[in-house]
Amino acid sequence: MSLIVQKYGGSSVANADRIKNVANRIVNTKKQGNQVVVIVSAMGDSTDDLIELAKQVSPNPPKREMDMLLSTGEQVSISLLAMAIQSMGEKVISLTGAQAGIKTNDFYSKAKIVDIDSNRLKEELDNGNILIVAGFQGINEKNDITTLGRGGSDTTAVALAAALNADSCEIYTDVDGVYSADPRLVKNVKKVNSISYAEMLTLASQGSKVLNPRCVELGQLYNVKIHVRSSFNLNEGTIVQEVDKLEKDRVITGIAHDYDVVKMTIFGIKDQPGIAKTIFKSLADNKVNVRLIAQSSGEFGVNNICFIIDKDSKQDAIETMEKTLIALDGKKIEALDDVACITVVGAGMITNPGVAADVFAVLGDNNINIEMISTSEISVAVVIESKDCERAANLLAQYFEIIDTEL
Amino acid sequence: MSLIVQKYGGSSVANADRIKNVANRIVNTKKQGNQVVVIVSAMGDSTDDLIELAKQVSPNPPKREMDMLLSTGEQVSISLLAMAIQSMGEKVISLTGAQAGIKTNDFYSKAKIVDIDSNRLKEELDNGNILIVAGFQGINEKNDITTLGRGGSDTTAVALAAALNADSCEIYTDVDGVYSADPRLVKNVKKVNSISYAEMLTLASQGSKVLNPRCVELGQLYNVKIHVRSSFNLNEGTIVQEVDKLEKDRVITGIAHDYDVVKMTIFGIKDQPGIAKTIFKSLADNKVNVRLIAQSSGEFGVNNICFIIDKDSKQDAIETMEKTLIALDGKKIEALDDVACITVVGAGMITNPGVAADVFAVLGDNNINIEMISTSEISVAVVIESKDCERAANLLAQYFEIIDTEL
Repeated sequence: MSLIVQKYGGSSVANADRIKNVANRIVNTKKQGNQVVVIVSAMGDSTDDLIELAKQVSPNPPKREMDMLLSTGEQVSISLLAMAIQSMGEKVISLTGAQAGIKTNDFYSKAKIVDIDSNRLKEELDNGNILIVAGFQGINEKNDITTLGRGGSDTTAVALAAALNADSCEIYTDVDGVYSADPRLVKNVKKVNSISYAEMLTLASQGSKVLNPRCVELGQLYNVKIHVRSSFNLNEGTIVQEVDKLEKDRVITGIAHDYDVVKMTIFGIKDQPGIAKTIFKSLADNKVNVRLIAQSSGEFGVNNICFIIDKDSKQDAIETMEKTLIALDGKKIEALDDVACITVVGAGMITNPGVAADVFAVLGDNNINIEMISTSEISVAVVIESKDCERAANLLAQYFEIIDTEL
Repeated sequence: MSLIVQKYGGSSVANADRIKNVANRIVNTKKQGNQVVVIVSAMGDSTDDLIELAKQVSPNPPKREMDMLLSTGEQVSISLLAMAIQSMGEKVISLTGAQAGIKTNDFYSKAKIVDIDSNRLKEELDNGNILIVAGFQGINEKNDITTLGRGGSDTTAVALAAALNADSCEIYTDVDGVYSADPRLVKNVKKVNSISYAEMLTLASQGSKVLNPRCVELGQLYNVKIHVRSSFNLNEGTIVQEVDKLEKDRVITGIAHDYDVVKMTIFGIKDQPGIAKTIFKSLADNKVNVRLIAQSSGEFGVNNICFIIDKDSKQDAIETMEKTLIALDGKKIEALDDVACITVVGAGMITNPGVAADVFAVLGDNNINIEMISTSEISVAVVIESKDCERAANLLAQYFEIIDTEL
């Protein structure tokens, strides 16, 4: 008997018919002789509706109360899904994050799972129940409800798969799996059958929306095989797993892009030890998430450092950097909006030198100017003007042959 | 410093504006130097919307899952109300039934409170917080969410007032208090300023919808003074309290009526010990709530017993009684729909004999036929044809002077 963890997103349970459809899939999985643990998100747009209600009563609602409010979304979907499954004749029980033993720290609205007390989960499985667990939520030491932030339900699924030592963790979504690039941007792009945690992590961190970076990180940490697939068909999706099981000869796995970035530069700071620490500690202290950093060598004893941040952190970043500029006696700061970040990802890069050079050549030959470069063992990220982003992605996809030429 | 418990029903928090209005009242109570514990119901019709969703996924949803679903309604309203209060600058925290330590038995959908662990409540009050507690819900020994059934939020309020030894318990509703009779039925009826637990209990059990019988019972048990008043104005409402504090010379406190009843009669059963037990035990075993019972002496060794049940128990009652009829070798059963029950209530009856006779006289003199009679120390209940109910209520109100003749 296998233990299968399945996660269904909000669009898969958006209305009564879809809930029944998902219930059917779950019952089929159970009837094939498996134990089944299901993680569900809130129905369709219900979370947005709750946020709208909150705005009507308070301009700046406390995060603890927002978590209290938003966690009801999943509680609604788990109970409805359990009802639908029960009416098909299967034993089933719904569990909130708290009941499922999901313990978090107390960073309301973006809590991290610190422990899973799986006693009740195991007991209910032993009783022959299908478990329907609320994603995106947990409970802190004070017994208060927390939510896990963006992609939280995926994280719940992988964490439960790890805690229960599940045989597989299936993430159901509205696309067929992980694509080598965003199909809305790059024509005829290939679906990836298998991808390493490191590659998926880089893609997810640099703009691919299919999986959340935290859930991939957790999968890697506990070696949980993650199967990303569609809830609307029976196609095999993409398996995220250890790298040694992958096709060795693939150099490039995917291309991520992100328009929601701002490029910040701090000009004219002294070229001496401790400067970078001052800048990035002040940003971290103000909860600005810095995604990429590039510093080239300076001239005349002064440096320019640039970095990429999420667009919604722009105001915080500017305020922080204005103070830092004074403290460091720098020249000026600049924040550029009209940029995009393109990241070419592939574990094969490690054994195939020259990928970075190829990326720069493809862009340069096509007259696309590179504003910033940052590389790792498995990725090359470039910041370019946003107007060039779509063209760049398609050129790179053609060059690295991640599009399906037979289509 | 006084500790005030306030309960607001669904219509008082039906939308953002009403939530802000209620928040204002609460903040004012706090600013007058009181500690405040607030119990809230789900917003407006939100519970009905959730029930509708459940029907769409299952013809007969399990009660545990219904409670999981319905309890989200109060969780939404407590968080929104807490946000509104916080935006007015007051310290506040929302608590689910579970967080408020409300322990129940596990009769899902109509659980009873068995204990309140008030540690967290006291701690949060000591921290200077206004507490916003979800009504209608609790948690059982399995850590599962239960709901308390009809009038559950009132019951939560009185139970918390008892557990915290509150100075008063204010139940806010959409009427000004308890009226001597239903103002929709009886013209110019008087509001009651003060009423005993026993009288209120009888009125509540016999059709008055203002307070739930369970909450009155709990108030009596723990001697919690209950103040029923409107959330839409500042008028004093009705105080439910111990009888010795009441106006002694008032004979009749109120008249309750109920159209939602069925009169059942079982004819031709033997006049011997144990018969009544057989009948009413079989009804109780089948969860039929019997409200009034009347048996007069029989002739020729056979008896007829009649009783009143809630209309929604009719089918269950008929099925049960058909079996009982065979077991008792009785003659036939009858279930009459077109009846109403009128109950005249007053603690003063104990010292004023002849009230029952007066009731019968008023009805008889006006040609209203009495189908059944049942009396207690503080009440006279009669079953009449439903077409006569409104006329009977008005005649009795005039006779017992519970209408305001100055209006």
